[in-house]
Amino acid sequence: MAKDQKKQPRPKAETPKGFRDYFGADVTERKEMLDRIAEVYHRHGFDPLETSAVETVEALGKFLPDVDRPNAGVFAWQEAEVPGGGTAGDWLALRYDLTAPLARVAAQYRNDLPSPYRRYAMGPVWRNEKPGPGRFRQFYQCDADTVGSASVAADAEICGMLADALEAVGIERGDYLVRVNNRKVLNGILEEMGVTPGEQADAVLRTIDKFDKVGAQGVRELLTTGRKDDSGAVIEGVGLAATAVEPVLAFLTSKGADNAETLANLRAAVGASVAGGEGVDELQQIAEMLAAAGVGPDRVVIDPSIVRGLGYYTGPVFEAELTFEILDEKGRKRQFGSVAGGGRYDGLVERFTGQKVPATGVSIGVDRLLAALRAKGLAGREGHGPVVVTVMDKARMADYQAMAAELRAAGIRAEVYLGNPKNFGNQLKYADKRQSPVAVIQGEDEAARRVVQIKDLILGAKIAAEASHEEWKAQPAQTEVARADLVAAVKKILGS
Amino acid sequence: MAKDQKKQPRPKAETPKGFRDYFGADVTERKEMLDRIAEVYHRHGFDPLETSAVETVEALGKFLPDVDRPNAGVFAWQEAEVPGGGTAGDWLALRYDLTAPLARVAAQYRNDLPSPYRRYAMGPVWRNEKPGPGRFRQFYQCDADTVGSASVAADAEICGMLADALEAVGIERGDYLVRVNNRKVLNGILEEMGVTPGEQADAVLRTIDKFDKVGAQGVRELLTTGRKDDSGAVIEGVGLAATAVEPVLAFLTSKGADNAETLANLRAAVGASVAGGEGVDELQQIAEMLAAAGVGPDRVVIDPSIVRGLGYYTGPVFEAELTFEILDEKGRKRQFGSVAGGGRYDGLVERFTGQKVPATGVSIGVDRLLAALRAKGLAGREGHGPVVVTVMDKARMADYQAMAAELRAAGIRAEVYLGNPKNFGNQLKYADKRQSPVAVIQGEDEAARRVVQIKDLILGAKIAAEASHEEWKAQPAQTEVARADLVAAVKKILGS
Repeated sequence: MAKDQKKQPRPKAETPKGFRDYFGADVTERKEMLDRIAEVYHRHGFDPLETSAVETVEALGKFLPDVDRPNAGVFAWQEAEVPGGGTAGDWLALRYDLTAPLARVAAQYRNDLPSPYRRYAMGPVWRNEKPGPGRFRQFYQCDADTVGSASVAADAEICGMLADALEAVGIERGDYLVRVNNRKVLNGILEEMGVTPGEQADAVLRTIDKFDKVGAQGVRELLTTGRKDDSGAVIEGVGLAATAVEPVLAFLTSKGADNAETLANLRAAVGASVAGGEGVDELQQIAEMLAAAGVGPDRVVIDPSIVRGLGYYTGPVFEAELTFEILDEKGRKRQFGSVAGGGRYDGLVERFTGQKVPATGVSIGVDRLLAALRAKGLAGREGHGPVVVTVMDKARMADYQAMAAELRAAGIRAEVYLGNPKNFGNQLKYADKRQSPVAVIQGEDEAARRVVQIKDLILGAKIAAEASHEEWKAQPAQTEVARADLVAAVKKILGS
Repeated sequence: MAKDQKKQPRPKAETPKGFRDYFGADVTERKEMLDRIAEVYHRHGFDPLETSAVETVEALGKFLPDVDRPNAGVFAWQEAEVPGGGTAGDWLALRYDLTAPLARVAAQYRNDLPSPYRRYAMGPVWRNEKPGPGRFRQFYQCDADTVGSASVAADAEICGMLADALEAVGIERGDYLVRVNNRKVLNGILEEMGVTPGEQADAVLRTIDKFDKVGAQGVRELLTTGRKDDSGAVIEGVGLAATAVEPVLAFLTSKGADNAETLANLRAAVGASVAGGEGVDELQQIAEMLAAAGVGPDRVVIDPSIVRGLGYYTGPVFEAELTFEILDEKGRKRQFGSVAGGGRYDGLVERFTGQKVPATGVSIGVDRLLAALRAKGLAGREGHGPVVVTVMDKARMADYQAMAAELRAAGIRAEVYLGNPKNFGNQLKYADKRQSPVAVIQGEDEAARRVVQIKDLILGAKIAAEASHEEWKAQPAQTEVARADLVAAVKKILGS
């Protein structure tokens, strides 16, 4: 076999297409963010749940409209013959989100779990889709859901918790807004318009989504006789009567100066519709509960403009937006936008048990929120690497280890250079690559005199960039201290 | 399609065979343990690395002796046609450990990574193997490796760091021991015995592994003329001369009262062997460096009895054992045993680049260490769940939310009961299932009087178990306090 192996070409050292590796701060910054969110979720009574990455394709369900092609959208494989393992021929797959495993768990453990069951989950999910810039086939999700509560108190709680979570990771009040709407209100509007579920209702929903772009007059035209766009092209209208369009226009323009005004406008818009009235009642209850819990409309607000994804949800829906501006890749200012969304949905467990179980939940876009924190300078502040103890004399490795151990005992991140110490320049290059703030140097002479050289690499880099040759030669960034003062001297430079 | 779906049988709500779900404390206790270990690794200059769960089968390599069956031991699948995705027909697989991805990363980013590269990694790995009790097809690994350093200082550092990590998670000094040996010493012994690599050397290695069971005399017999075991069966000897066996016996019995004595015994055992002498020198350097770093032989000790896995390694090897006794499932005392192991290995990157890169590392058995912490009462101390604010009056949900919000603002984990509030008994059953320490109750009457009832559920359970009916009726576990004193009263019960 050894001979055969030699004939084989070397494997390529490559991350599979659409996957990526996370190094250093990429890992710790995300972890820190998720830890803070988890702390908020935990304080609200949510329990962590960690399911395995692998599910049966049968349990995942959703992505299988076509039985002949069970791996569309997911990474799936057939169980091989493993004695005592799974049943050969069964299909397994990597989870594509954290909701499908929750549905399976809620059904599987329904007799053991508390009801309602509040749970949060954080972890990678996998999509067998076309990768693109910033779009990977493995990425993190961070979800919180309450299963088994029909009360809008559950929705209100999640909205308030989401606001708390955003502040916990460092987004200041005023820099975010959680907007709440209700699918039932929209149902009421359709009812009031005399539009029944089906093609016409779908056309209305699609048109509502264009409100941001075309405005009230544009929506009016699109829902009635049609509209000529900027390019002169004519878009056919849905064919509703002008009067039938009024409720949806009232809905789209119902955002008032405060929640009370918005709710009054919505109540007028849904008219006599029972479903619509119920939807407005729910929004009012949510607003009241949030107010009682000290969560003001500067943090969570009723906002009928949140329509995205309404089709999937059955009741309240919410979306968290970051309202501060960042510069895009072309240097233009733009709002950061949405970082989380969710709402109430039915039928989570129904596929498994036949019973409808009400549920509501939110999902935070982990990569987007982390990008926002970086844009605001709230992540990636560690800035520098470990103190590097250089090696001038290979035979005194034990002394260098002792220095690093002393620094660590004082809570300072420190390491001994472990490469070939022959070329001292390489050691400083290494320290540079490690973004070390300080290099510790002790040659034979210093050892005899019981001193060490402390090189301030941050100051050194600054001097190298700014100072004249003469100034540089004076080396103020390097100082000699007694060996016994090593820790104190390093602490002083680190400002710790 | 909706019609077709109705005809299909309901999917089973089941974790796939050999996989498991982690709930609540299962997740948080492991996370807390790994966080503490990560903190120690980070302080030693190790950087986190998180590779994707998916690798190309080509890059994983090792598990593929048989090209016709690429998924032996791993979960693997062939890339389907995804426009812009991977190349159809390529094989992908879930990583089976954290070392194979490190090898790929060390080769792929060799021009960008610092050298030496210290990294730690924590996360799930997958094995397509027969599951068994306590043996799952997905489990956690926790590794630290230094790539690119040939210095035994790297080995010494990892041994000391391992000891620090064990103490950081709560294992006390004296309750663990990191034992260090060196593959080169064993090579020297074989040389000294006149045994060349091949069948005879393998037979010697196998026999050394039996030393624990059969003792020195047993090893002597097995290596020479053979041995009759307890059952009377005769095991054929390896056929070495009696004199040839002396070095290995000296090796096996070389553990002295301290490192110096052990090293002297080992030096005598390897005799004139150059490799053996080099091995003993390395162990001596490790002992010296650890001593200089303040890591005494009560924490890391030279111990020639560590032979397990020696075949895989090329230099120093180490193993961490927990030395305290626990009761096994039959109530018998036994030592907890090994929780981590590692050593120096070559050829990590060689498969990819053709260049030998020296590396050393350690892997902590996450599940075993967590089990040890639980056995010592060091994990799972949270003990109770959130404070539950019960709902006596559905219309005053906002008031209950306000109570929970106040408790949370004071750092107390709290939630409002979100199920159907009609049956109050169900609310207390829920609180019981949640292991709540306190239930907060406020009915119409209490609200009018601006008070709340605080039910101490821990004391209540104690009374229910121990008290007479009369005592129970007196309900000392429930007290009435002013609404304004809610937080203070709950804090008092929680002792926080």
